[in-house]
Amino acid sequence: MKTGNQYRKSLKQLAPNLYKWGKPIKDVTRHAATRLHVKAIADCYDAGFDPEHAAIFTGESHLTGKRAHRWNTLMRSADDVVANARIKRAQFQRTGACHGATCAGWTALNALWATTWELDQAEGTDYHRRLENYFRYLEENALATAGALTDAKGDRSLGPAAQSEADQYLHIKEVRDDGIVVRGVKAQICGVAAAHEIVCVPGGGLKEGEEAFAVAFAVPRDVAGLTAVETRRPSDTRDEEEGWDAPRAGGVGQAFLLFDDVFVPNERVFIQGQTRYAGVFINHFTALYRAPIGACVAGQGDVMIGAVLALAEAGGLSQKVFQEKLTRMAINNETTFGLGLGAILQGQAHPSGVWIPDPLLAHINKVQVAMLPYETKRLAQEIGGGITETGCFPSWQDLTSPLYGDKLLTALAAVSDGETRARLARLVEWLTVGGGIPGCLNGGGSPDGARLVVRALEPWKKFATNARRIAGLDQN
Amino acid sequence: MKTGNQYRKSLKQLAPNLYKWGKPIKDVTRHAATRLHVKAIADCYDAGFDPEHAAIFTGESHLTGKRAHRWNTLMRSADDVVANARIKRAQFQRTGACHGATCAGWTALNALWATTWELDQAEGTDYHRRLENYFRYLEENALATAGALTDAKGDRSLGPAAQSEADQYLHIKEVRDDGIVVRGVKAQICGVAAAHEIVCVPGGGLKEGEEAFAVAFAVPRDVAGLTAVETRRPSDTRDEEEGWDAPRAGGVGQAFLLFDDVFVPNERVFIQGQTRYAGVFINHFTALYRAPIGACVAGQGDVMIGAVLALAEAGGLSQKVFQEKLTRMAINNETTFGLGLGAILQGQAHPSGVWIPDPLLAHINKVQVAMLPYETKRLAQEIGGGITETGCFPSWQDLTSPLYGDKLLTALAAVSDGETRARLARLVEWLTVGGGIPGCLNGGGSPDGARLVVRALEPWKKFATNARRIAGLDQN
Amino acid sequence: MKTGNQYRKSLKQLAPNLYKWGKPIKDVTRHAATRLHVKAIADCYDAGFDPEHAAIFTGESHLTGKRAHRWNTLMRSADDVVANARIKRAQFQRTGACHGATCAGWTALNALWATTWELDQAEGTDYHRRLENYFRYLEENALATAGALTDAKGDRSLGPAAQSEADQYLHIKEVRDDGIVVRGVKAQICGVAAAHEIVCVPGGGLKEGEEAFAVAFAVPRDVAGLTAVETRRPSDTRDEEEGWDAPRAGGVGQAFLLFDDVFVPNERVFIQGQTRYAGVFINHFTALYRAPIGACVAGQGDVMIGAVLALAEAGGLSQKVFQEKLTRMAINNETTFGLGLGAILQGQAHPSGVWIPDPLLAHINKVQVAMLPYETKRLAQEIGGGITETGCFPSWQDLTSPLYGDKLLTALAAVSDGETRARLARLVEWLTVGGGIPGCLNGGGSPDGARLVVRALEPWKKFATNARRIAGLDQN
Amino acid sequence: MKTGNQYRKSLKQLAPNLYKWGKPIKDVTRHAATRLHVKAIADCYDAGFDPEHAAIFTGESHLTGKRAHRWNTLMRSADDVVANARIKRAQFQRTGACHGATCAGWTALNALWATTWELDQAEGTDYHRRLENYFRYLEENALATAGALTDAKGDRSLGPAAQSEADQYLHIKEVRDDGIVVRGVKAQICGVAAAHEIVCVPGGGLKEGEEAFAVAFAVPRDVAGLTAVETRRPSDTRDEEEGWDAPRAGGVGQAFLLFDDVFVPNERVFIQGQTRYAGVFINHFTALYRAPIGACVAGQGDVMIGAVLALAEAGGLSQKVFQEKLTRMAINNETTFGLGLGAILQGQAHPSGVWIPDPLLAHINKVQVAMLPYETKRLAQEIGGGITETGCFPSWQDLTSPLYGDKLLTALAAVSDGETRARLARLVEWLTVGGGIPGCLNGGGSPDGARLVVRALEPWKKFATNARRIAGLDQN
Repeated sequence: MKTGNQYRKSLKQLAPNLYKWGKPIKDVTRHAATRLHVKAIADCYDAGFDPEHAAIFTGESHLTGKRAHRWNTLMRSADDVVANARIKRAQFQRTGACHGATCAGWTALNALWATTWELDQAEGTDYHRRLENYFRYLEENALATAGALTDAKGDRSLGPAAQSEADQYLHIKEVRDDGIVVRGVKAQICGVAAAHEIVCVPGGGLKEGEEAFAVAFAVPRDVAGLTAVETRRPSDTRDEEEGWDAPRAGGVGQAFLLFDDVFVPNERVFIQGQTRYAGVFINHFTALYRAPIGACVAGQGDVMIGAVLALAEAGGLSQKVFQEKLTRMAINNETTFGLGLGAILQGQAHPSGVWIPDPLLAHINKVQVAMLPYETKRLAQEIGGGITETGCFPSWQDLTSPLYGDKLLTALAAVSDGETRARLARLVEWLTVGGGIPGCLNGGGSPDGARLVVRALEPWKKFATNARRIAGLDQN
Repeated sequence: MKTGNQYRKSLKQLAPNLYKWGKPIKDVTRHAATRLHVKAIADCYDAGFDPEHAAIFTGESHLTGKRAHRWNTLMRSADDVVANARIKRAQFQRTGACHGATCAGWTALNALWATTWELDQAEGTDYHRRLENYFRYLEENALATAGALTDAKGDRSLGPAAQSEADQYLHIKEVRDDGIVVRGVKAQICGVAAAHEIVCVPGGGLKEGEEAFAVAFAVPRDVAGLTAVETRRPSDTRDEEEGWDAPRAGGVGQAFLLFDDVFVPNERVFIQGQTRYAGVFINHFTALYRAPIGACVAGQGDVMIGAVLALAEAGGLSQKVFQEKLTRMAINNETTFGLGLGAILQGQAHPSGVWIPDPLLAHINKVQVAMLPYETKRLAQEIGGGITETGCFPSWQDLTSPLYGDKLLTALAAVSDGETRARLARLVEWLTVGGGIPGCLNGGGSPDGARLVVRALEPWKKFATNARRIAGLDQN
Repeated sequence: MKTGNQYRKSLKQLAPNLYKWGKPIKDVTRHAATRLHVKAIADCYDAGFDPEHAAIFTGESHLTGKRAHRWNTLMRSADDVVANARIKRAQFQRTGACHGATCAGWTALNALWATTWELDQAEGTDYHRRLENYFRYLEENALATAGALTDAKGDRSLGPAAQSEADQYLHIKEVRDDGIVVRGVKAQICGVAAAHEIVCVPGGGLKEGEEAFAVAFAVPRDVAGLTAVETRRPSDTRDEEEGWDAPRAGGVGQAFLLFDDVFVPNERVFIQGQTRYAGVFINHFTALYRAPIGACVAGQGDVMIGAVLALAEAGGLSQKVFQEKLTRMAINNETTFGLGLGAILQGQAHPSGVWIPDPLLAHINKVQVAMLPYETKRLAQEIGGGITETGCFPSWQDLTSPLYGDKLLTALAAVSDGETRARLARLVEWLTVGGGIPGCLNGGGSPDGARLVVRALEPWKKFATNARRIAGLDQN
Repeated sequence: MKTGNQYRKSLKQLAPNLYKWGKPIKDVTRHAATRLHVKAIADCYDAGFDPEHAAIFTGESHLTGKRAHRWNTLMRSADDVVANARIKRAQFQRTGACHGATCAGWTALNALWATTWELDQAEGTDYHRRLENYFRYLEENALATAGALTDAKGDRSLGPAAQSEADQYLHIKEVRDDGIVVRGVKAQICGVAAAHEIVCVPGGGLKEGEEAFAVAFAVPRDVAGLTAVETRRPSDTRDEEEGWDAPRAGGVGQAFLLFDDVFVPNERVFIQGQTRYAGVFINHFTALYRAPIGACVAGQGDVMIGAVLALAEAGGLSQKVFQEKLTRMAINNETTFGLGLGAILQGQAHPSGVWIPDPLLAHINKVQVAMLPYETKRLAQEIGGGITETGCFPSWQDLTSPLYGDKLLTALAAVSDGETRARLARLVEWLTVGGGIPGCLNGGGSPDGARLVVRALEPWKKFATNARRIAGLDQN
């Protein structure tokens, strides 16, 4: 296991293949675009040594039986997946941000655990053993992994093999004796800057003829041939400013990954050409990912509740005035949290040893996290007032201007001073229309995709048969 | 254990203290107002012998270790409470109705199990032993129990002791050496006609000076001095008609209970005067009741989905036309179901041995079951069309009229014949604006009561402290 | 103009071709199934003589310039259509029910006014003159007209000409020199029992080959060959009971109309075979009908607000406790009302002289009236408590039982006596799950039909072009 | 009347008392923080000469009878207020932004027209004549006016006179023979940078003892003693960047106004000390402002529809896939638009000549514009996908990087090229979580304030009386 500082040190040793604003990011632990997400992940590492949080931020290794960072272990029981959920919620409560570099990669590896087991059973291959070795490597080195699913996709009405440009989907360009060469673009990958490793997996089901796209593997983040471009977020230039217009506590980052003939040795390849298992993987992944996602969204909402409560209080308003709205916010948060727990409880152990939550309830949760938080955000802005809705508040530079800053701060003071109100208002802005928006709607796949799963899994015919019987038809 | 027929026979032996329309109900197994609910409970009894359902409709007795009807056993684990939830959902899917006489009474006894344990620990009394004996009696005789919480209440701005008429709340009128004499009115009690026993418990928290109302006990349904009046439901006279305007598969019943100096022997008294334990009981009861309630509402929704699917098909319309609405219905159903499971999973074992679900999530679920089903019903009526919204369809008497019935049935035939469409349309009417409405909004207490619990349990201050830290305040 | 009593007398003179429960209704002014709707319409007639209401319940005749019952006049201005809206809302506020027999028929005639004008312009026919004469006849005799659109429809995946049974749609069976013979079934026609005349019009657009179904005409309600079957509604047998379990103030009725070779003289035929004008009619009708429909639904909601306020007060609860819910109910009501007014204001005068509201806003209103009232009803039931949700309250027979009625009424008394609470609870039940449900979801056509119109009328391409320009594309 | 260029030129002549980032803005027509809002207002000026738009962007002067920019005229009829609504919607459709500097100031002057008329009638003062002269001045010079209502407010639990710092509310510091001296802070004032004049009015009702705060007046934007600080908005630094990450078509701006002993000559003072008329003004203003506000929000939504349609098309997806979501977006937009028209139609002419929309419907509209757009935005992001939700897309600098820009743009190309998709995705980001958010929730006052008005204006008692009568009570 690593402390936060050991983790930071290890990141500095990676080669600088990350860019933003067209320029390289030399040190992810210090660059304004990445330091906050690194800080959030460093907090996750430190939490493993903190008695209050160690029980959820660490777990027992399925390989060595030792205590390990939880994101280096297999989730073997409902309790293990609940711990995943708890990390998500705790991480937001602690830092106001998500734990990207210890989230999707971890989940992808767990889903691959079941997928490779099935694949080996059916095909006599040995991907599962490779994955076990890779898991061992991660645990031994206490590494953070980003998970890369989404491809650039190009024309969305066409499949990967039909695109005009092959690079719109990550694919195998060449098969060598000792490994494969891959190229193409993965888009909007969370946590890249704070990860040591990238776990690449298919972003959707595949069919015959799309073998080149059926590929899962892991590479170091700074592998030769990979260029990562950090994306923009709303108000992200504030992270480079002095002052308080952006909170400094936590952050998230997403990147586009350009694979330009990257070599992956066989030992790190986990699916290679078996199109059928792209779908198997996606099923396992989405069940595992979308059950705890409600806890992630609940954590976001917890911060919104806290921020508007603190802001209202700073403005001289009592909690009572807003209690109905606050209660509604809590109902939304706890609904996605509790529904996710239900999905986990309804799950079952896969023969490979990983616990797979109930897919129907997991996808129901995905639909809810794409809707309920919008009401929560609206209520946050309604409680917070106009300055939180559009951020229309003077900048830090103005509030500290020698010419008129004092007058502004005096006028803005209430029960608390002007700075306190400014900081809290900016936090609500950041959470609802700023860089802190964590992406619950489309993150981890679209709600319409989840609705299709609901359609596929709900026993419609059985319900119709029941209804006919209850109506007095079809009973003889 | 009893079969459905043995259960029916045992009910016939009770004295006829039930009334509807101002007249006594002589045989609850045959009277139009009660026979359907009795049938639903008889189905529950039979399910204990049905291999497909026995695992959930029966459980292991905590007293004897024998297999028993589940409503005669203690819920000792998350799995036991999940089985409660599954009974609810299965019962709706099988019969279109709730399992009243095996629902609230059972839950009340489980909540009393924890309450009397605490009470005895604190006060040195022996209520818990009495309850254990009573549980044994129920198991030995395989009895169904209605649970009576809600009092008539009178002026709702006043407490029980301040009412102009003492009988507006059930209370202890006299304490004798061998027992107590109680009187007063319990209102809207579900399942009375199909129960052997009535378990009376406080309907809300109590304070000093309200000792007479702090009373929990059990009596046979036909105890001397008790008069039960079955209430009306929408379209309930259809149950007395010939034809198909009311489905015959399942039903629910509620009664007002008039206690007119009913004697209860000490051995059947479980709380007597300890006002503090009214609140303790309510907390245990609502957590246990409101976690599985989502499964009850999901089961209702399952029947609505089935009914509109069958109706649309009978009218020549494909499922595809309505898929978005059906998916939304399923999302609502599964959300309350899954959220309830989450509440159960988050629960913990009480020292007395009963499993108490997480109260925060249980009450969140209560709020959701008071809202989501209304959208589900609306969608059912939108898919079903005008005849399901207001029932405006010719009566069975008209559809079978020698004068014009044929013409009507011919005009109404589509892919299916007119009778099929009539039966299914009437089923949707019954489920959404008829006698089949199960009462998810106010049943088991008001959603505003649940919102108050949410307000009490959500860690507001902790959230505000977190927010201040994230905003860069309060951190030194 | 007629008084309510004159109107009643005129109805008695019609031949008894109405049935319910398989039996003829001899006197619609006295039969339990029809007397309340007749009473509601009689109230409309009387309102024309009541200084407070005459301004909206009467209007200036476009033919004679005289004051006439408004439902006998042409709507020639936005103000005239607003008066239509006001009648709807006032009628609910006054009687708790809709004004069926003075609603859809009137609107159909106004839509025919524009349709026949266009038809005659294009085809050189003289339908418009016939309609003018018919309007004159209605005004001279102060008649009420039901409007019959919806056909029985049969297999909904097939058009009228493709049905296995021709009678599933009303159609021209034979053309004679002096008129036409029609047969088939119209379904769920509102206000038949209280109308003197039935105005039959197409229920949807038609295409080539469906000429037989392109027919509009008017017949006396008791024309030879017509049988009308009154439909059931939830809890409709209560209307036949003694006591207070059903309110007596207003009512609605719907009927199935069996046309069995009914002869219609040419002078009363307004469309005959011109399929294109079925669609023209539908467009005019829905714009005219769905703009004021929001006022109808607002009136329903006004009664719900009043009922729960009165009930809460009777139970000792202050308005303040429920203010947020009441305000939300009012917002829903006023939204549909105000949106309808907006549709009217946005309308324009048709060359024939009738005012046609804006179809886009009118159909938007239709969608809203299919959704918002469900929240209003849910809130009514939440404020009203359990007895209003499922009606589970003792019957009038039980509350007046010599054996135990007093005990019940005493227990139910609060600030008001038990009867007051019973009556008000039953009113909420009646409004939300009883016979008083007016059918806002599917009445006047399905919301999905309205959504299709929105899809057709919204300028999508223009919006996309604007967006491209704003984004800096397509501008050179 | 002025052209856009004449308007720009006139703005340049104002003294530079505006600041952002702690630095003065020397030329509002060129500075990145203000030029886009100036451009939007210049478009309004030009529209007066554009045959397609002149009918709504200009009106007939109530003083001179001449054609004038509409924001320099009195709204004397429903049609005049509808034109206000149409300007709002057209302005969004044309520029993607609001018309701040021709919006609230204009509305405030119209509300003052009625207020001063009443005040003069009651008190014998001559404020109305002063206002008429001021109106004449505006028309003659074709000026744009910002309207300043909201004070800084300080401790929101205290009134203006009870604040620790007097400057938290704008107030009269000194009364001189020839005028008054005012000081204090107005917050979040829209359109300041693009206005020639500032119209200051009370932000809420006032009571006895608060005379100093009862003040309405107009000053030039560059009056001596006034400092205006432009606020930040989400992602506002993008407006200073090269490239396409911010759209250039339109913009909005808000400022804090620091009045530091500003002298206002008597002729420009319209209320001075009459606390009662602060409330009168607020009532007139909110009715006038909140009726057309639905058109403003509809216009915002029109742009969102267009942007996601164009984006989906650029990605190879057909409109059909998203039609249900698009239709729902249109329903939301048209509901607020149509409801606002209804409020206008229901209004009435004030004796002073100004048309005052119905306050109940206007405030209902305010509540809806605070809710519906959030669903519209959510749907926009759901259709647009992940890149529109959090903006996580490479920056313009990255997409044009010589090192890897080509690879990115190739991967992002679909039916359209990468730049097209980037621009449209950024537009959706800008509209939903970026600088383009127009502030519909709290803009023009809080929805809770509007709910209070609904509570005050809805005839609750009348509804309860009706209900009792319908229930058969209180009728004798």
